[in-house]
Parts: sequence; C-alpha cells; structure tokens
Amino acid sequence: MIGYAFMGRAHSQAWRSVDAFFDLPLEPAMVALAGRSAEATAQAAEKLGWAHAETDWKRLIDRDDVQIIDICTPGDSHAEIAIAALEAGKHVICEKPLANTVAEAEAMAAAARAAAARGARSMVAFNYRRVPAVALARRWVAEGRLGEIRHVRAQYLQDWIVDPEFPLVWRLQKDKAGSGALGDIGAHIIDTAEYITGERLTGVSALTETFVKERPLASGSAGLSAGGGAGRGTVTVDDAALFIGRLSGGGLASFEATRFATGRKNALRIEVNGSLGSLAFDFEAMNELWFHDHTLDGAEAGFRRVLATESSHPYVGAWWPPGHGLGYEHSFTHEVKDFIEAIAAGTAPEPSFDDGLRVQRVLAAVERSAADGSRFTTVEGS
Amino acid sequence: MIGYAFMGRAHSQAWRSVDAFFDLPLEPAMVALAGRSAEATAQAAEKLGWAHAETDWKRLIDRDDVQIIDICTPGDSHAEIAIAALEAGKHVICEKPLANTVAEAEAMAAAARAAAARGARSMVAFNYRRVPAVALARRWVAEGRLGEIRHVRAQYLQDWIVDPEFPLVWRLQKDKAGSGALGDIGAHIIDTAEYITGERLTGVSALTETFVKERPLASGSAGLSAGGGAGRGTVTVDDAALFIGRLSGGGLASFEATRFATGRKNALRIEVNGSLGSLAFDFEAMNELWFHDHTLDGAEAGFRRVLATESSHPYVGAWWPPGHGLGYEHSFTHEVKDFIEAIAAGTAPEPSFDDGLRVQRVLAAVERSAADGSRFTTVEGS
Amino acid sequence: MIGYAFMGRAHSQAWRSVDAFFDLPLEPAMVALAGRSAEATAQAAEKLGWAHAETDWKRLIDRDDVQIIDICTPGDSHAEIAIAALEAGKHVICEKPLANTVAEAEAMAAAARAAAARGARSMVAFNYRRVPAVALARRWVAEGRLGEIRHVRAQYLQDWIVDPEFPLVWRLQKDKAGSGALGDIGAHIIDTAEYITGERLTGVSALTETFVKERPLASGSAGLSAGGGAGRGTVTVDDAALFIGRLSGGGLASFEATRFATGRKNALRIEVNGSLGSLAFDFEAMNELWFHDHTLDGAEAGFRRVLATESSHPYVGAWWPPGHGLGYEHSFTHEVKDFIEAIAAGTAPEPSFDDGLRVQRVLAAVERSAADGSRFTTVEGS
Amino acid sequence: MIGYAFMGRAHSQAWRSVDAFFDLPLEPAMVALAGRSAEATAQAAEKLGWAHAETDWKRLIDRDDVQIIDICTPGDSHAEIAIAALEAGKHVICEKPLANTVAEAEAMAAAARAAAARGARSMVAFNYRRVPAVALARRWVAEGRLGEIRHVRAQYLQDWIVDPEFPLVWRLQKDKAGSGALGDIGAHIIDTAEYITGERLTGVSALTETFVKERPLASGSAGLSAGGGAGRGTVTVDDAALFIGRLSGGGLASFEATRFATGRKNALRIEVNGSLGSLAFDFEAMNELWFHDHTLDGAEAGFRRVLATESSHPYVGAWWPPGHGLGYEHSFTHEVKDFIEAIAAGTAPEPSFDDGLRVQRVLAAVERSAADGSRFTTVEGS
Repeated sequence: MIGYAFMGRAHSQAWRSVDAFFDLPLEPAMVALAGRSAEATAQAAEKLGWAHAETDWKRLIDRDDVQIIDICTPGDSHAEIAIAALEAGKHVICEKPLANTVAEAEAMAAAARAAAARGARSMVAFNYRRVPAVALARRWVAEGRLGEIRHVRAQYLQDWIVDPEFPLVWRLQKDKAGSGALGDIGAHIIDTAEYITGERLTGVSALTETFVKERPLASGSAGLSAGGGAGRGTVTVDDAALFIGRLSGGGLASFEATRFATGRKNALRIEVNGSLGSLAFDFEAMNELWFHDHTLDGAEAGFRRVLATESSHPYVGAWWPPGHGLGYEHSFTHEVKDFIEAIAAGTAPEPSFDDGLRVQRVLAAVERSAADGSRFTTVEGS
Repeated sequence: MIGYAFMGRAHSQAWRSVDAFFDLPLEPAMVALAGRSAEATAQAAEKLGWAHAETDWKRLIDRDDVQIIDICTPGDSHAEIAIAALEAGKHVICEKPLANTVAEAEAMAAAARAAAARGARSMVAFNYRRVPAVALARRWVAEGRLGEIRHVRAQYLQDWIVDPEFPLVWRLQKDKAGSGALGDIGAHIIDTAEYITGERLTGVSALTETFVKERPLASGSAGLSAGGGAGRGTVTVDDAALFIGRLSGGGLASFEATRFATGRKNALRIEVNGSLGSLAFDFEAMNELWFHDHTLDGAEAGFRRVLATESSHPYVGAWWPPGHGLGYEHSFTHEVKDFIEAIAAGTAPEPSFDDGLRVQRVLAAVERSAADGSRFTTVEGS
Repeated sequence: MIGYAFMGRAHSQAWRSVDAFFDLPLEPAMVALAGRSAEATAQAAEKLGWAHAETDWKRLIDRDDVQIIDICTPGDSHAEIAIAALEAGKHVICEKPLANTVAEAEAMAAAARAAAARGARSMVAFNYRRVPAVALARRWVAEGRLGEIRHVRAQYLQDWIVDPEFPLVWRLQKDKAGSGALGDIGAHIIDTAEYITGERLTGVSALTETFVKERPLASGSAGLSAGGGAGRGTVTVDDAALFIGRLSGGGLASFEATRFATGRKNALRIEVNGSLGSLAFDFEAMNELWFHDHTLDGAEAGFRRVLATESSHPYVGAWWPPGHGLGYEHSFTHEVKDFIEAIAAGTAPEPSFDDGLRVQRVLAAVERSAADGSRFTTVEGS
Repeated sequence: MIGYAFMGRAHSQAWRSVDAFFDLPLEPAMVALAGRSAEATAQAAEKLGWAHAETDWKRLIDRDDVQIIDICTPGDSHAEIAIAALEAGKHVICEKPLANTVAEAEAMAAAARAAAARGARSMVAFNYRRVPAVALARRWVAEGRLGEIRHVRAQYLQDWIVDPEFPLVWRLQKDKAGSGALGDIGAHIIDTAEYITGERLTGVSALTETFVKERPLASGSAGLSAGGGAGRGTVTVDDAALFIGRLSGGGLASFEATRFATGRKNALRIEVNGSLGSLAFDFEAMNELWFHDHTLDGAEAGFRRVLATESSHPYVGAWWPPGHGLGYEHSFTHEVKDFIEAIAAGTAPEPSFDDGLRVQRVLAAVERSAADGSRFTTVEGS
C-alpha cells in the first residue's frame, strides 16, 4: 500500500479485517507500506499492521512478495504508480478519482485493459458502492423495482472549509487534487448515480464557484501543505459544483458537490424516482435505505425505512444480526473482499479503470460546461 | 371571488375563518362568487358561504358592495380580470403564477402600480410565504442568523401524473396553464427562495422534459377538460423542470419542479446554507423548521427540529398552544389577514404584482435557457 | 356552546367550517354561547361567530332554537350541565375527561343511556380519534393488518409547566381538574390506545409524581386562577403519571403522561406492535402514520411513512389533495361532522358517554394503584 | 477468550483493531481461544485471529502468556470462569449480564474486589456505554446540561422471535440464560439509564409475559440447542418485560424490553428529560444523539440531531472525519481500549463487577415485583 493518511488508514483496516468475516479464496497478507519519510512510514507501518516499510513506491513493485498495489496517494501520482504496477504484473486498486485529467485516466484505463489480458486485475476505489444500502439500491433497480428512471437527485454536502481561515491544504490546490469538491466528492455521486441506476449521464450543464479565494498557507506538514511559509495563497479549485444533466434512459438528474453546506458533515445523498417506485439514501444515516413502492395502493404507500442490516442484504451476512449497524470503513472491507474474489476467479472487478475514466469524462464535461456559460455539454463517449 | 375549484375552496375557508382568529381593522364579508355555470356557481356559493352568485366576473366588479376581487381562475384569465378590477378601483388578490406570459405580467404590474396611486391594493397569492415555518425562516435570515448565503437547494416534488393514463387536464395545456410543473410549482419555489433569502436569482441554466407526451383527453368537466371527446391529446407543457442559478449575493442555487417524483406528494422543500447557519423545510412536515446554528461549538451543533408552533412565531399566536400544528389552508388565512391589514393601513401588501412579475421573468429565463442548450441566461431586470 | 377558552375556540371553528367541506344531512347553526361574564361572553360570541350570548348555561337549555349543547368547561361542571341538557332532550357533546370522578361519570352515562331511548344523542370529545392518521390506524387494526396485538406504547408528553414559576392555574387544582397530567392528557392516550386496538386495558400498575409542589398563585383571570392574591399555593394534582398494564387480548401496554418532558410540546405518541405488523404515530407530525408490514419479506420491510392525506383516508376526501396536511382543529371538525350525522341517522355516536366512563374507570384504577404501592389493579368493569 | 459465537466474534474484532487506532500503553496479543469442540474451536481461532485453541477454559487460566480472560459464554458459566480467573490473578472482562442470579453476581463481585487488591482488574461488558453518542450523553448530563432529571424512557425493542416457529434456542431457556428479554436486553437499558443519568433505580413495578409458550426444539447445533430431537419444548423465560420505577434523584423511569416489537431490530432507545434539557438516542441510528437545550429561547429550541462523529466526541478522534459513522463493533473496540488503559494505569475499569451486580439486583427486583402483583419493589442496596 502506498500512502497512510486518511485513505491509507481506512484501507489498512479493510485488509486487516476482511479475512475474519468473509470466507476468501485467497488470504491477504499485509506485506509493505510505502511513504516518503522513512521514520513516519515505519511508524505508520507498525501502527497499521504492515510488515515492512518502504520509502519509494517503486520498491513495492519490485518486491516478489507483493501481488497487489493499493494506491492511497493524492490524484497527481495515480497514473504513474498504477501504470508501473500494472506493467509489472501487479493487481492494482486505486483511490478515486482515478486521475487528475482525462488524459491520465485514459492512459491508466489502457494500461488496465492491457494488463487484464495478462491476468492483472485493477479496480478504482469508489467505496460507497460497497455500503450495503447502496448495493441494495442497485439490486432493486436492476430487478426493475423502480421501473423507468425519471429523476436522480444527488448531493454530496460537507462543511469543513466554511471557515475562511481553514488553511490551503493539498485538496484545495489544482496541481495536487485536480479539482476541488467536484473531483473529491462530486466524483462519488457521479459514480453512485450511474451505479445505482445502471444508466449513464449523457450530458451536463454546470456552475462552479470558489467562495473563499485566498486562504492561509498550511503550516508545512508533508503531503498536506501548499507552501513553506506564512501568508496566504490562492485557492485554485472549486468550493462547490452544481450540474444538471440527462440520463441515457431519458431521465433528468441534478448534482451538487460542496464543502460549504453548514451542518452537513458527510451527506452523500441520492434519491431516485422511477415510474414504479423511489429510493432515497443519505450516508449520514448509512444503514438506512428508504424505499417507496409505487405499486402498492396509494392509501398505504410511503417511503419506508429499510434498515440495510438483514443477512440477505449485500455483504451484511458476514457481520452482525439485524439492527446492528455497520460503519464507514466497512465499505473498504467489502471492496477488498470483492477485489480478492475477482483476482481468485480471474474475473474483472468493478468499478474498473474504465469506470474511473468514465467518471473522469463527466468531471471534464462539467468543467467545460462551467467554463462555457453552462452550455449543455455532451460527456465524451456517451 | 372568481373560481371555486381547489383554490376557490381554500380562499373561501380563509375568508370565513380569518376574523375569528385575528383582530382585524376591517371585517371582511363574503359577498359574491363568480363562475361560468349558473347552477354550479350557485351551489358552490351556498356551500362555501358566499352570499351571492354571479356568472360573469364583470358583475363582481360592477357591484358596489364588493371592494376586493379574489382571482382563483387558471392563469390565462388573470390579466384581463385583474386589470379590469384594478382600473375599477378594487383591491385585487390574484392566484399565482401572476400570468401566463411576461407581457401579461408586465401589464398587470403596471396596472397595480397605477392603481396603488389611487389607493387600490394588489397582491399575488404565493401562499407558502405565510406558512409559519417559512415566515420564520425569512425572519431568521433577515436577522443575520445565517450569515452569507452560499447555497439554496429548492425542490417541489409531486407525483400525481406519473400514471400515463392520467388525463389531459387544463394544467397540462400550455394555452390554459402557461407552463407545466415549472409555472405551477416551480413558481412557488422561486418565490420562496427569493423571499427567504431576500436575494434574487440573477441567471439560470435549465433543462425541461415532458416524459409522457400524449394523454387521454379529459372527460369534459367544466374548467378541467382539454377537449370534448375520447382519444388522446398532446401534452403541451413540461412534466419537470430543473435549473441551477446564481444568487445576487454570490451564492449558488438549484431548483427542481416535477410531477414525477413517485412517493412525494407535495414536497416543497428548501434548504439554505449560510456561513453562520443553515435552514431546511419540507412542506410535507409543514410545522417543522430545521435550523443548524453554525456558531455553536461543533461538538453540540446539529440540525434542530423547531416546531413552528410557538406563540412568538409568525401568525401562530392567533391559533393554538405549542405542538398543535396548523394545516395547509392556514397559509391562505394568513394571506388574507395580511392583505386586509395592508388595505386598512394603506400600505403595499407583499408579495406585490411586481414580485409576481419578477417570478414570471425567472420562469421566462428558465424557458429560454432550456430552449437554448441550457445556456446560462440572465433574468430580465436582475 | 358553553365555555369559550381553548376548547371553545376549537369547537367554534369546527361548527363554523364543517358545512363547507362535508355534505351534511343537517345544517348546523351557531345559535348561542354561554359564559359567566356578560361582557366577555358577548365579545367571544361576536368573535367566534355565535349569534347570541348567555350568562347562564341553563338559558341555553331553555332555548327552543338550541338542539345541541356543546360543553367546553372544566371537568367539575360537566356532570351537572350534561345531565340537565340530556334530561331536557338536547343532544350533548362534552369535552373530556367526561367527569372528575367515576361517580359523576356513571351518572352521566346513565343519563345518556336514558336520553338515548328518547332520541337524544351524546358524545365525549376525544378529538384525537378524528385525526385522519389515528382513524386510519384503527381501520388497519380492525382489518387485521397487525394480527395479534402484543404491545402498546403510549405517551403524551408536554413541557408547559417545567418552569417552577409557572402559576397555579385551574388545571393544577384537583377540585377543578380532577387530576393533573393523568386526566388531562393521560385520558387521551387511554382512549386512543383502546380505540386503535379495539381492546381494553384490564388492569394497571402505576406511579404518579408531583415534581413542583408549590407554585405562584395565578393573578386572578376568571376561570384560570387558583386564588385571588399573591403568594404561593399547593399543587394538588400529579405532574406526571406512568402506568403499565395488560390488554384484553393478552398484550402488554405502557403509558406515560407528563407535563415535564422538556422539548416535547404536544407529543401524543402511540406505537402498536402486532404479530403481523406495527403502527406508530406522533401528533407532533400529525399527518404521518408509520406502518411496518411484517408480512413482507424481511429484506424489504421497514417502517413506512404514510402521509395520511390521501382522499381514501378517513375524512381526508373533503379537504385538499395529497400532501396538503391538516391541522389540529380539523379533528374537531370531523368530530362534529360525525356527531351531526349520528343525530340525523338516529344512531349512537362514538365515543359514547359509556366510553368516557370507561376511561374514567381506568384513571381511577391508576390512582388506586399509585396509592397502593403500584399494586396491579383491575379496571372496574373489565 | 472463551466462546466464539456472536460475542466472541465481536470481541475478537475489537482486540484485532484497537491497537491500530488508539495509542495504547500496552499492546494486546490474541493468544488463545477456548471452546468445547476441538475442531470448531481451532477453526474459529484461525478465522478470528487467535494464535492457539483450547478445549478447556481452565487451560487458558493455566497459561502464563495469558493475562486477560475475556468471557463470551452464556450466563450460566460466567461465575465459575470469572472467579477462577480472578483467583489466578488474571484480569477479566465478562459479557453481560454478569450472572444468572444475584447470588452468583455477589460472589463474582466479591472475587473482583479481592482480586483488585492484588492488582487484577475486572469489567463487565456493557458495550453500549462505549457507543460515542451514549458516552456523549453521559458527559452532558454530568456537566449539568440537563438539570434535574425528571424522566427516563428506555426501551430495547427487537423482533427476532415473533414467529412462533422460531426454535427454542438457549436464550429462551432459563437454566442457560437466566431470564429472557429481561436479562439479555433489559440489562442493557438498566445499565445505560443509570450510566447516562448517574442515578440509581431505587424501586420498580413490573409486568412480564411469555407470548409464545412452546417452541420447536432446536436442531442441536452445539451451544445453541435446547435438546437433541424433534418436538416442542417449553419456553421458560419472559418474551417481554415492562417496568416503571423511581430514580434516586426523584425522577420517574419506564423500561421495556421485548423481542416482539415487529419492525424494531435493535432499537435500544433512551430519552432523558431534565429541567434544563433533554436527550434522545436510538441505537438503530447509533451515530446520532438528539439534544434539546431548554435554556434557549423557546422560539428557536428543538431537538437537534448531533452527529456523534466529531473528533471532540468520546472515542471518535481515533477514527474518521465528521459524518463518517461508526458501527456496532466499535463499541467493543472502545471497551477493550478502556480496559487496557485501566490495567496499565492500575485503576478500576468501569463498569465494574459491582456495577454488574447492581444491574443483577434490578433484574431480581423486576422479577420479584412481577411475581408479586406488580407491587413496587425496592432494589436491594439502593
């Protein structure tokens, strides 16, 4: 695994736990962690349960005892690492967004396709697909429970940078993060919407905004800071992105990604309205899926709160009895479980790098539309 | 009053009740009801408590014992009636949307301004402003509780025409209704958003769609049907309208009006995120206003459910003790209460015909944007 | 009608509105209002829409143009008025609790039975039965949707006397009010629980408590004060009453009535768990009935929020389209509608004085149990 | 660790994870797992990450490399194992309820006190205390945010044995489980209520019931079955227990534990009303704590949904950013974290065996009251 910050800790817990709950065809071992600082990486490896520490990610690829490369770094390094790993025959799981540009994502997807022919698997870590309630939503749509999809209403609302004195961390710098709320959290709702509906966004019309244009420079902790000193720097990414679009099945969709929704902490929300029913989900109540069955008599219909904690729900049987909810990091455990199973079975895990590229193209269409007077902009490849 | 269908019944209950709960400077009398059919109008007048029935609205204007004209007809007749009434020196309260076109609305607003100089008052019936929770939201924003407004998220979701066999009623015909979900319910969220925030939408980017393009002709009941016979007719209005836009204060806003959101019955929802706090409202739980105070310590902050039933909340003191909720028609009672008070005081009631014109211009900008590849379109007069 | 405070205002709005929304076999006229003070009663009559004012309730009974006596006074006068009215051949609708003692209630019920033989109808005003969601709950239980009832969980939570400086109003005096939270709001949940389940409480075990034992004397407004001066007086009723009991069908039930639940304004809540399903209701969200259908596959079951605003729901067809909620006073409108229909049809309206007596007996059993070390106490007549 | 069923799996995940998230003064090692069947225990040890497997729990106590004994067996074996372990100088963490009888619990508490003098620590595993929202509730009550406690309303609602064909598992047999819903889940709400309020239940009045009196014998899987064959057996424990009681601070409390609340899966709910505020919690939404601050102006007060996911909330700082919820098993991780810290510090961990004994005495008072006509029964030692 490369990187040991937020995502690295979450992935580590997944690798540590997956085997105790799921019956896996292969048993994962936590071989080595790579980071830039020798001391910090060694400490993190010790803490997170990795047997070895490396200061150069290329050393991980060189190791014969490493078959899987798990990329938890900022988006600007994804392409180089992933392509090198795939070419070396490693399986690769890569954090989202797949890359910072469409061009990088295309190169990665091409590398993934080439590697697949040689048996190397790849996956982009849209972990929210593995929240049981989200996977259950996908199941019900696929079963036709919603009929024709007319509306998708997706939002990802956070509020962690509302304070204008919050510093200029790497996620607020275009060269590191690619974009702001759009790529960080907007990417998740694009993927979630397409995953649940099984449809594609064919085009979008967008607005983006940076509310706080300058921020204090971060104090310099490696990997986080924008510069080395005091003073202020320019925020080079969006604070919020709104877009509306059309779905391949004829429906309409709206999206909003923002870090300025005071009081919303991690509200990844999606509502889907179909001709036969509707679904609603909010990650802040991640164990609940709300379902309206429009085929019932109107006198008894209504949105029902399904606790997605039944053993027959996706992934849940491995865990606890009904009503005993799961948490955020379980989505990663399910992710590596599916990845391991795909490796063992020789099948293509999802979401693939092509799926990651697909999201990247939507992000690019959003940016083009926003730069072009919100004009409706076709998503490349749709 | 002219018209005795849905809106006519709601307004009648307001006129009937207002005096028993509020201490008014003038006592309203329910003089006469106008409709097209003599028999049906007489029955409605008897039922709804109007002393006389007329089959020509012009007769209402001729009556000396009528000082207020309340227009509850479809939008295609608003301009003619309102202008005639204003020119005759009557006070006019008119259902929304003010008109079916900007040109009509401009003529009405001009007539209202001219009439105001002669002491005749006019008001457009955006009744949701008078829901206590909505008026409370406005109060708190005006007091600065939310700080700078960054986001508005407004939706008006219904599902009453999801069934493709639902007939082609007048609300689905452009010549009668002007537009579909956009003008009927989209108008409400535009007005509500501008009212609560005190800001204006400066421009929009829009998508509209008609999911069901043909419907059975209605069976011919007066005032509702599209035609006289069997067969099918073309739906000439939008089923759903989505738009995003910019607010005069620098914030971003998204809007969605649809009659295809299965399971949502009358979900007029709005969330406003400001730098100091947030508010959320859903008319399906109309006695609740959710408030997040971002100035509290984060450890104890969260959206709180304020029951808008305290005697210090707008309009509530006239009714029941805390926790004893109000219903839909109370918004109309509050509306006529404010209208009567403005007439007595000689002040300009709100929302004015200029406010109605304002909404009409937003609707027009939405339609222009939708027709022009979703291009960002400035709202006239902004 | 006798009395024009809180209940008098609510009943007046019902009498004023019922005819405009329901097609009644008889048309009610608001003839006369009785109260003690001539001036205040005359003002109230004018305000609330009663044609005449009387200062002696006996004058109402003497009037030939009065066929219905509506009793909205404190409980200590119910028996005398109701019995006199019934003996005079008037129909009587009486606020709850029916009386302050079982003996009074027995006399009233006997008078009602005797009067019924002569065609005079009587009804006790447990208005919450006429909230559409509550009537819908009763309908579904009666249809067998819940199977065998195992649990009832009923609470009526308010907080209006938490402040120890809140004065000693009549509702806090045993001679006027009979009991405290128990009779005022506990009576409602007893009736609601028995109404919805169709079962009876056969016995109870109870605790009561008075948290604030002395309060400032009220300042002497007629009908509200405890005494004429300054100083403090003793609270002679319960602040809270808790009891658990057994239902005639074998289930268990718990009840709590309190005026010390900070933050709960008028939370009349009931949850019923049966072998085939469950229902939950909270008056603070009075247009919602939550239903869990346990016959569905567990993977898709959950409590669903049914908006009790469909035209097929009890009483709703007379009002507005789905999603346009009703308010507190609609329950009274429905009550008088049913009462008028029963008078016209010559049938016995419900809840009858016997039902009121029944609740009185439960209240008495609660008080006996609380006074006897919480011993399980059989409800008389069960 | 002894036992590897539901609780064993949860505890194992805690031991496996605690070190990766918390900075501990001692590093736990998962040495050995004990169970009755050699093969099954070996498989479980492999799966759950224990280095060795034993078929006799006494072997664990004999091992020098084992310092902590974690007891995850049914209640009938707790006393023997715990006392032996404590006498051998081991630290002991024991699942709840502490024992099946007061006598056993007294012996265990005595052993714990004696062992503490020799440096051996003991703890009873009321894991819900370590849910962040519950610990936060305790913190706020301790800080005086609620003022005087007037009401506690605690329920633990499940529905897993509603089906009369659900088999007679060990939890339905008095000799194994001690009692039914009462000891299994009622014990949790007793502890949670006393923990959050910092008060004690001084006496109770109770009702218990067994709705389904006979059930099919379980098919014989070790540790779960009631017998070896077909046929039916008698349920010897309660299906539901209701009780009301008094708190040491003068408040009233109600409790309900049932496995027959259809639609409620693991609804451990508690609401506390104090003179200055209220708190509400439901484990089915375990990351939310609802708080009403009664010191705010009434016009803006209301129950607020505090996401207990802030880094300043108990235990949360070790995990994820705000809004990224935790799951059921995190409560166990927090439990062992606190236990390890207490061992290292030489302090007494809580809840102690005396706390466990305390709950056992409440359970006994409930049973005595239920057997004695619901008479109010003082809790021993209160």
